[in-house]
Amino acid sequence: MKDNPVLYNYFRSSTSVRVRIALNLKNINYEYIALHLRKKEHQSDEYLKINPYGLLPTLKFPSGIILNQSLAILEYLDEVYPTPSILPLNPIDRAKVRSMAYAIALEIHPLNNLHVLNHLKDDFMADEVKIKSWFSKWVHKAFSPFEKILENDKEGGYYCFGDTPTLADICLFSQVVNNVRFDVDLSKYPNINSIYERCLTNDAFIKALPKNQPDAE
Amino acid sequence: MKDNPVLYNYFRSSTSVRVRIALNLKNINYEYIALHLRKKEHQSDEYLKINPYGLLPTLKFPSGIILNQSLAILEYLDEVYPTPSILPLNPIDRAKVRSMAYAIALEIHPLNNLHVLNHLKDDFMADEVKIKSWFSKWVHKAFSPFEKILENDKEGGYYCFGDTPTLADICLFSQVVNNVRFDVDLSKYPNINSIYERCLTNDAFIKALPKNQPDAE
Repeated sequence: MKDNPVLYNYFRSSTSVRVRIALNLKNINYEYIALHLRKKEHQSDEYLKINPYGLLPTLKFPSGIILNQSLAILEYLDEVYPTPSILPLNPIDRAKVRSMAYAIALEIHPLNNLHVLNHLKDDFMADEVKIKSWFSKWVHKAFSPFEKILENDKEGGYYCFGDTPTLADICLFSQVVNNVRFDVDLSKYPNINSIYERCLTNDAFIKALPKNQPDAE
Repeated sequence: MKDNPVLYNYFRSSTSVRVRIALNLKNINYEYIALHLRKKEHQSDEYLKINPYGLLPTLKFPSGIILNQSLAILEYLDEVYPTPSILPLNPIDRAKVRSMAYAIALEIHPLNNLHVLNHLKDDFMADEVKIKSWFSKWVHKAFSPFEKILENDKEGGYYCFGDTPTLADICLFSQVVNNVRFDVDLSKYPNINSIYERCLTNDAFIKALPKNQPDAE
């Protein structure tokens, strides 16, 4: 346990889900430290020393290495613990996978982050209906072309790219898990749903689910 | 010219600025194709065939390779044209640089994208004052800790990490260029400003500026 990294995270945060999946896929044991977002534990002086952005997750190694930004953590883990890899070998294929991952991590998640939704409530008087429609809007805007790309360019695999999980599946799965709380209708996306179902047969993904964390409510 | 990639982009788009800087840094000649965002040229059937998301930029090679998502393009360029590199060699340093880049590319830019600002105007009745305050809010939220990290962990360099431009500088510079249009006060960020000024002494950055593009208005 002494050599294991510590993951500062929150059961429901989808960027936390991403990092948990990668740690599980790569069989890296880690210590789970829960920070409660609604209790603003991520804004404590103590945590801001570890992560000046006050964002989750942070991965801290006993050697003193502290990493933040989930996508930077995922790239780091893939460079230092390359087996199994979550990126293909060929640069073109890597670009395809990264592009899929970023379509979610950049076009959906930043807009639907808790602090953004709170700001819309506080400063734009958005009620629950308005918040749900905001949330869905960005999901559909990216999921529609994403579904089309999966349809045309599936590489015949069970996952977003081929038959093993990549960065793209990690981001897609975490987003779909998050969607459930906002009643986003995903019935139009058979390929996305089938990948989500496939992930749900993989222990690394199951173990990373919010409901399976020690701080789950 | 026949072997040069084609960049579908827009002079003012900051994700386009990012890719132009990287192409310039790596001395890759490219053909410039302008798509006018306000005229919705990025939503034409023709462009949607090349980029189903209808987003800029897209980089298309004569071999048929089509890449989208600026960060995926930057990683691809660094893998295929490694000199000069825009990422350090050591995984920990790479994670630091990616984390800085993502603090901008994920925490600021997605929220301040033109289509998001338009949605706020249309659906939340946001006026110019409200738009500017929204835009500034996300800049300051990320720039304050970013400035602190630069202060504490400068690695003694002229740029975000060391003495040569990286992914972090590319994202930072493009964001600062974008800020100007929304009157964001950056006087509190001496380290960010000094890196921006340093970039302005580098031809690769100068040539990528909106005002130096063929479609500049």
